[in-house]
Amino acid sequence: MPTKPRSPKRNAFYAQSGGVTAVINASAAGVIEACRKHRSRIGKLYAGRHGIVGALTEDLIDTSRESAAAIRALRHTPAGAFGSARYKLKGLEQDRAKYERLIEVFRAHDIGYFFYNGGNDSMDTALKVSKIGAELGYPITCVGVPKTVDNDLPVTDCCPGFGSVAKYVAVSTREAALDVASMARTSTKVFILEVMGRHAGWIAAAGGLAGRGPGDAPHVILFPEIAFDQARFLERVRQSVASRGYCVVVVSEGVKGPDGKFLAEAGTTDAFGHTQLGGAGPEIARIVKEGLGYKYHWAVADYLQRAARHIASKTDVAQAYAVGKAAVEFALQGRNAVLPVIRRRSSKPYRWTIEAAPLEAVANVEKKVPREFVTEDGFGITAACRRYLEPLIAGEDYPPFAGGLPRYVELKNAPVKRKLATDFKV
Amino acid sequence: MPTKPRSPKRNAFYAQSGGVTAVINASAAGVIEACRKHRSRIGKLYAGRHGIVGALTEDLIDTSRESAAAIRALRHTPAGAFGSARYKLKGLEQDRAKYERLIEVFRAHDIGYFFYNGGNDSMDTALKVSKIGAELGYPITCVGVPKTVDNDLPVTDCCPGFGSVAKYVAVSTREAALDVASMARTSTKVFILEVMGRHAGWIAAAGGLAGRGPGDAPHVILFPEIAFDQARFLERVRQSVASRGYCVVVVSEGVKGPDGKFLAEAGTTDAFGHTQLGGAGPEIARIVKEGLGYKYHWAVADYLQRAARHIASKTDVAQAYAVGKAAVEFALQGRNAVLPVIRRRSSKPYRWTIEAAPLEAVANVEKKVPREFVTEDGFGITAACRRYLEPLIAGEDYPPFAGGLPRYVELKNAPVKRKLATDFKV
Repeated sequence: MPTKPRSPKRNAFYAQSGGVTAVINASAAGVIEACRKHRSRIGKLYAGRHGIVGALTEDLIDTSRESAAAIRALRHTPAGAFGSARYKLKGLEQDRAKYERLIEVFRAHDIGYFFYNGGNDSMDTALKVSKIGAELGYPITCVGVPKTVDNDLPVTDCCPGFGSVAKYVAVSTREAALDVASMARTSTKVFILEVMGRHAGWIAAAGGLAGRGPGDAPHVILFPEIAFDQARFLERVRQSVASRGYCVVVVSEGVKGPDGKFLAEAGTTDAFGHTQLGGAGPEIARIVKEGLGYKYHWAVADYLQRAARHIASKTDVAQAYAVGKAAVEFALQGRNAVLPVIRRRSSKPYRWTIEAAPLEAVANVEKKVPREFVTEDGFGITAACRRYLEPLIAGEDYPPFAGGLPRYVELKNAPVKRKLATDFKV
Repeated sequence: MPTKPRSPKRNAFYAQSGGVTAVINASAAGVIEACRKHRSRIGKLYAGRHGIVGALTEDLIDTSRESAAAIRALRHTPAGAFGSARYKLKGLEQDRAKYERLIEVFRAHDIGYFFYNGGNDSMDTALKVSKIGAELGYPITCVGVPKTVDNDLPVTDCCPGFGSVAKYVAVSTREAALDVASMARTSTKVFILEVMGRHAGWIAAAGGLAGRGPGDAPHVILFPEIAFDQARFLERVRQSVASRGYCVVVVSEGVKGPDGKFLAEAGTTDAFGHTQLGGAGPEIARIVKEGLGYKYHWAVADYLQRAARHIASKTDVAQAYAVGKAAVEFALQGRNAVLPVIRRRSSKPYRWTIEAAPLEAVANVEKKVPREFVTEDGFGITAACRRYLEPLIAGEDYPPFAGGLPRYVELKNAPVKRKLATDFKV
């Protein structure tokens, strides 16, 4: 519902949330440049230092202190330039003090627009901020900016951050597959790449793009959506080694056994209560070694995959920027509690547009890889999946290099003078 | 010593050996294009299918069947296009039958030139082939082509394959460091990247290029040359987290404790008798977790680092090609038992030339990171190390892309008709 602004010109607040990506700063650039374009209606744009934590502790960054060149450079700089946070606000009743604190800080700085750049959890928080604002009679327009490498947001056709990690995983799988094919005669027979994706196998699926024909690597993909069947897996690996001399496996960190338990659990949990994973790769290697005795190698891409701006997808960068820009435009249209989503108009040629969707439709919902995107045997991707994924990794968008290394920008991140006398412990 | 050819035109044999790299095929392209340029003196160039194993089993590939475009594309294609082998020939007395078999195959195909593309072990083999040829009265000119990501060959200033893995590790460390810096306030405090380098810490040292100033990541590098001191390491990590909120660690797979044992041993050995490693990264993570309790993430780059042609160093590609080309030119000059090495003429501006060195000087010798390249505390690289490393990662040399993925060439690899009735079991 449209929110009537108290004054013609109010300030805005932007925060990055959750795990960062290669292109979340491109969304930040989209938000900041759009705000600068609308100076008559938006005053200062403040960013939260370390996301929502910066709002709670009144630790705000004045983005107006950054040059136009620095903001442009955000478009090619990975990770979160203002700092992100894994900090989940619970229900309005449970965490009422935190929501009230947010409004207190927003009020102190005359913030009328709240842009929250994150995944499902963060869209839920943005929704709750819009509700508490209405409840407390503080007018604030809350617009989400979608971000997650996991691609597990519903409603949107894809999610900024995913295309680049998908490209990284597809390229790396193709390269490593050539390596193991070279070595297999006398050495490594099985190569295992562990990729991210706690509950949704989109990133693992992207590994499937490395191959073109039926015999091409990867020969096995292990999805979190498909229960791991050790005997069938080993038989597939054995067949692959027998027929072509080697086997390439892409395994999601979130692969689960028939008992529903993660194959590899570190036993610790993050602030969202999610189990911290890591080790599905070496675990699969152990299973191969014990079951078949083949020489193996394994890699765990971890942060490398989501930070790899040097091999970002041009499509992904464009979409990340576009959702940031659209978020500001929606806010200026008075649309509250929405987020820009990507709608696919056609796959070949690939055409997409940005639309507004209600935060309510996205908050806390996970979109998994549908069964029809996985081959019947559970180990590969179908033609439909390929059609869906291919446009998302299209195009290269190399950052500038100097001295052999990418030139990523470091912002000044100048603090905004505090206005409140009260501290808030997070 | 110069070898007098039996006939004005003889065939040549090329083989790839040991772990492959992002640019070993660029060396192959250098060899093949140089041979094609000298058709009046070199007949066919055969490649060994899976390296020296192809020679022993008379499984030769006719490179003349490949188009000029395919050979050009080798320059941007990672891994071993003809297959490589981890297959070490021992001393002339111990493995006499194998050496005699090589000469038998070479004689059957009138091979007068032997180009062996590998590391220290392979240079030793090339040297022995030249000796057995002389001993058996079979004239063969043996020239090595240096290759190893480990950069542990003596005599040469650097080794093709290293510059690209160095660039990959420096870029990845810079990117992942931005990621953990974004997350550290509420989540991951320590990020650990495990890189290759069994006995020499050159690749780990390259991680040091990610930072420019003293406080920049990586904050700790663990070299195989410096005995791991757990208490000092933990204190350094604690300081880094206390002062800047996070800590980035680059650890060589070959890091050893004060007892000289690898921190993480898989317990298996490869064909060269080398212990197969993997797991120094998770082991360091465990030490951090138990010693300090910080939330951590770890990555193991494994094959991804040496196959990453998409982020190859332009300098490295040029040098890889140049040593392949020079090997043929040396052979045609009648220089036997030599290899082309890279001599640095100056660091700023970077200038290098190719010279011939005797195989004897290189075979089985490992060049480690000198102590003066490591900071006094043992956790970083010095200015001298930086001056040495920087030129090696300079320049980008992107492969062509199609549909979002690099277009790597797949050769026909047509077999040469066998001439011998005897089989040889490897």
